[in-house]
This record gives sequence, structure tokens and C-alpha cells, in this order.
Amino acid sequence: MASRGPSLPRITDVAALAGVSTSTASKALNDTGQLRPETRERVRRAAEQLGFTPDSRGRALSSGRSFTVGLITTDSSGRFSIPIMLGAEDALSAGEMALVLCDTRDDPLRESHYLKSLVSRRVDGIIVTGRRTEPRPPIDVPIPVVYAFSASTNPEDTSVMVDDHGGASSTVQHLLALGRRRIAHISGPSTHRSALTRAAATVETAGDALVGEPLHGEWSERWGRHAVDVLLRTAPDVDAISCGSDQIARGVCDRLRELGRAVPEDIAVTGYDNWSVMALASRPPLTTVDLELEQLGRRTAHLLLDAISGTPAPGVHSLPTRLIPRESTLGT
Amino acid sequence: MASRGPSLPRITDVAALAGVSTSTASKALNDTGQLRPETRERVRRAAEQLGFTPDSRGRALSSGRSFTVGLITTDSSGRFSIPIMLGAEDALSAGEMALVLCDTRDDPLRESHYLKSLVSRRVDGIIVTGRRTEPRPPIDVPIPVVYAFSASTNPEDTSVMVDDHGGASSTVQHLLALGRRRIAHISGPSTHRSALTRAAATVETAGDALVGEPLHGEWSERWGRHAVDVLLRTAPDVDAISCGSDQIARGVCDRLRELGRAVPEDIAVTGYDNWSVMALASRPPLTTVDLELEQLGRRTAHLLLDAISGTPAPGVHSLPTRLIPRESTLGT
Repeated sequence: MASRGPSLPRITDVAALAGVSTSTASKALNDTGQLRPETRERVRRAAEQLGFTPDSRGRALSSGRSFTVGLITTDSSGRFSIPIMLGAEDALSAGEMALVLCDTRDDPLRESHYLKSLVSRRVDGIIVTGRRTEPRPPIDVPIPVVYAFSASTNPEDTSVMVDDHGGASSTVQHLLALGRRRIAHISGPSTHRSALTRAAATVETAGDALVGEPLHGEWSERWGRHAVDVLLRTAPDVDAISCGSDQIARGVCDRLRELGRAVPEDIAVTGYDNWSVMALASRPPLTTVDLELEQLGRRTAHLLLDAISGTPAPGVHSLPTRLIPRESTLGT
Repeated sequence: MASRGPSLPRITDVAALAGVSTSTASKALNDTGQLRPETRERVRRAAEQLGFTPDSRGRALSSGRSFTVGLITTDSSGRFSIPIMLGAEDALSAGEMALVLCDTRDDPLRESHYLKSLVSRRVDGIIVTGRRTEPRPPIDVPIPVVYAFSASTNPEDTSVMVDDHGGASSTVQHLLALGRRRIAHISGPSTHRSALTRAAATVETAGDALVGEPLHGEWSERWGRHAVDVLLRTAPDVDAISCGSDQIARGVCDRLRELGRAVPEDIAVTGYDNWSVMALASRPPLTTVDLELEQLGRRTAHLLLDAISGTPAPGVHSLPTRLIPRESTLGT
């Protein structure tokens, strides 16, 4: 480890070693101007020998761009925003854009502080992600913004969302295709948009095969276990349970096993999220819905890059989910 | 959303609105030069009215610093590096430093590409985090670097590590204090440094209270369940099991319950990591060790800031863990 001053070679060092003027060295390294090929080559070798790296901030200042994007997340636990962030980072780095991370911890003061700081750093654009699918108020900055996972309430903004309706519908279609005809739904709080969307899609897709009303509770294994007891009292002949999350589905499987009901032979179970630590550790492993969040992050980054280069695509972009069939519906 | 050109006000716009020269406007906003108070005030009001934000890149170029730090992570799943990253981001943002995220996905080519890009952006320093506690080769850049979670193999570098020996020791001390005298250890692969360190600390601290050799397997609930069967065949009278991870401990608790052994009345169980989704969902909730990774991230950031300002603190800094007692040892 060294302090920067003495060790980062400058263009003047390269010029001195090559025996040329600074402006000649600069032309040689930037492939501009009229130079003899051997001069150009001598400068290049000197730069290589010294480990000279051009200062990309010059390019940034002269192009009026910083080649930097800010990511505002409210979700410090990161279950949803981390894969989105990694997908965005992957897509941006391919274009030599850097991603600056800003974790607001759900604090509006921190958010406004970060926005000021990002604008003063002249980032080229901003990605805003959230923990819930409820729409959020837009941020007020004079640069391109794309919202991921939580849409902006302004329909003229660009937002990228998971198609939750399609995702929940796909699990019910899968259960129907397997011949299940008495399908119940257990999900998270009815105050959460994601739980309501998934419940509505289940009711709509199941039609006559739906058993009772959707049961809403907390997003937890404990609620899954408890909900099984509630459900079996009123509908002992249920043959499938579609759940609003993998955590709930794991609790459902555990309780069914304790009660001696075989999954999937007696009752098939589906989860939602494809959260591997839940879906794979469940006994049996869960058929579930992958939200394709890294893909969502990549799409968000591409839409932001489009907006930065002057071709924004306003509106809500809804991305498809993917059904992952496993033992909890297919058996072994 | 707008493209930047027309909408970001410039200092010349502020000067025009205030009816002063650009250099006067600049002096007024930077609180320098000799100006009448009413001129300064008029410029400030003009800046506010236009929503003018000073360009912090000027400050960066003139100070020779970018007020930006790079974070290199090899851990895309993020269980360990995400909290470290968030802690570092929190500490850096307090000092108006931005954190640029670089996810190498364990690919040396990506890592070297990112390092070049960070150096050409003139970041002030770099944080390197990993997924495992094995030491890693140092990176070769002419700016300050601090390694977090995975130490550098060069002892003259600055590394910040979890005190795994102390953490594992604290669970055994806790079990001994509760009167347990036949303690077994179930952990992850013997090819992982973290599993070996925790096993060694357990053996050392338990002394005569240790039952059998530490059992090594995969980091999974499934291994935890299986290891219980292996253990109880040879040591049916064990009264405590210290586990190398919360996942293993959760599997241990599930299997003990299935076999009718009460936790903690018959057998006390401890986990490791305080991974809430495992530790709290376990039946019963797990006594475990919190690695204090956000704190580790903050400490890393502070050590990097020290190095950037010319006072590096080389060597391995080992940070204490925290024992979290819950029902799996204390009962209800």
C-alpha cells in the first residue's frame, strides 16, 4: 500500500522517459495528431514501463458525462434490491459505467441528501429501487431516472416491475395441469400490494377450483404452519395450496408433514420468490416462481442508458417471471 | 425526467440572473473574495431560484482526490459481503465519499478489469471483500487498499477480520456456564478455514467436556439433520451441540424434535452467524453468534480513510463477535 502522490505516474513522466514533449506524449496515447509511428510506439512503451493509466476524469469532463450512475435503495436487508443491483452493475460495467451505491435505510432525509450529492457529482442517471411493490413518489432531479421493483406514481416516468399477476397465475395453471381441483391460497398481509395481486391472480385463474377465500397473514413460516390448521378445519379435502411466498410454503410443508398429509401425493404445494435458502431447504423442495430480479436489474440499466443517450421509454415495463417446478408438486 | 443539457443550470445562468460576472458569482457561492454582502445574497438567491448545484468534480480535481472509494466483492450471493458493504457505505457517506460497487463474480479477469477502471477513475482507495475467510492474494494498485473478511496474504497490508476463534469459544463458554458437560460439535467442510477455526476453538474451550471429534460436512440443514443421527449412535448422552452455522443448527433442532429429544431441556443447541432467517425461524429460535459485519464494514471504511489521509494501520485487525442467547439454550 502506498500513498498516491509519489507512485501514480503522470503523463509528464511518460514524456520524459520517451524523450518527447508532454503534448506529443498525449497525442501518442490518444492516437491523435501527426506523429511518426516509431514516436508513437516509443511513448506507448514508456507508458507501459511506468504503469501509466490515463485519467478518465478528463474524458468525463470534456464529454460532459461522468460515466457514473447512482443507485438509491431503501432496502438495507437487501433481499429484493441486492440481485437487482448486481444485475444493473453487471450491465453498466459492460459499458464502462460505474455504479455508486446509496442506501437510504428508508429515511427521506438520507434520500434527499444522497440525491444532492449524486447531482453534484454529475452522475449521468439514477436507479431507484425499493423493498415493496407499492408505487412510490418520484424523485425530483434534472437527470434521467428509472424506477425498479417499486414503480413511480408518475406514469410518465420509466418503471420496471415484476409481473406478479402472471407469476401467481402460472403456479395455478401448473396445479390445474397436474389435475388439482381443490386449490387454496395462503399469502402475506392484505395491506401489501404484492399479496393482493397474487391473491387476485389466483382467484381469477383457479375459477371453480378455488377453495374458500385467500388466507392473509404475515410473511413467515410460522403463519404458514398456522394457516394449515385453519384451512384443514374448513376444507379437509383440499388437494393443493398455492402460497404467496417460499417462507409461507415451507411452513405449510412442515405442518402438513407433522399432520401426516403427504406432499405432493395428498396436497401439492407451491411457493413464490425462488429464494433458494427456503425453496431448496424445504421438505420437499418447492415448486416456485423466480422473479428474475437480476434480469430486471439489467433491463433497468439498459433503459437508463437509453434515457441518458436521449431515447427514454416512459411507462411501466412489466417483466415476466419463471415457474420452477420441483418435488412439492411433481413428487420424486 | 429530462436530458441533462438544457435543464442543469450553470454558474453563468446564476450570474446572469443576479446581474453579476461569472467570477463574482463563483466568489459569492464559494464564500471567497471581497464582495458586498448584498451582492453575495443576490447571487445566493439566484442560485436557489434556479436550483443550481455546484459541480463537485471541480473540488475533486483541484484537491487531487475523487472522494470516491471502490468496493471489490467476489461474493455475488452476498450473504457476508452485503452487510460489510452497507456498513462501509454508511461510514463513507458520512464523510461525503461515494462507494462504487464492483462485483467480480470470482473471475480474475473481471477483477483486473475493475482495478484498471477504478485506478483510471482516480478513486481514493479500494475495499476488497470475499466470501470466505481464507487469505487471498493482494491486489496490485498504487493507492490505499483495505481487505475485509478475507485477509491479504501480505502481512504488511491492512486487513479486518472476524474473530472466529473468540466467537466459537463464546458459545462453548455459554454452554459450560449453563452446566452442560457433554458437548459435541457439528460444522461445515474441513476444507474451509472458518469451519476449522471454529472447531479448534470448540475443542480448546470445551476441554474434558468435549464429546468425540468435531463432525464436518456441508453447510446445510440436511447435514445438520444427518449429523444428529451419526452423533446419537455413538454418544446418546450428549447434552449440548455447538454448530458451525445457523443452517446446520436449524437442521439439528428439527431432527432432535423428530426424535423426541427436547431442545434445550435434553440437548442445548447453538448456531453461528445470527442469520435471522435461519436463527429466528428455527424451532426453537437459536442462541447464536453475530459476526457484527456492518460494524466490520464501518471499521474497514475508517481504516481506509486513515490510510488515504496518510496514516495506514497495517496488519490484521480482528473484531469481536457478539453472543445472542435465545431459546435453544435458555428455554422459554
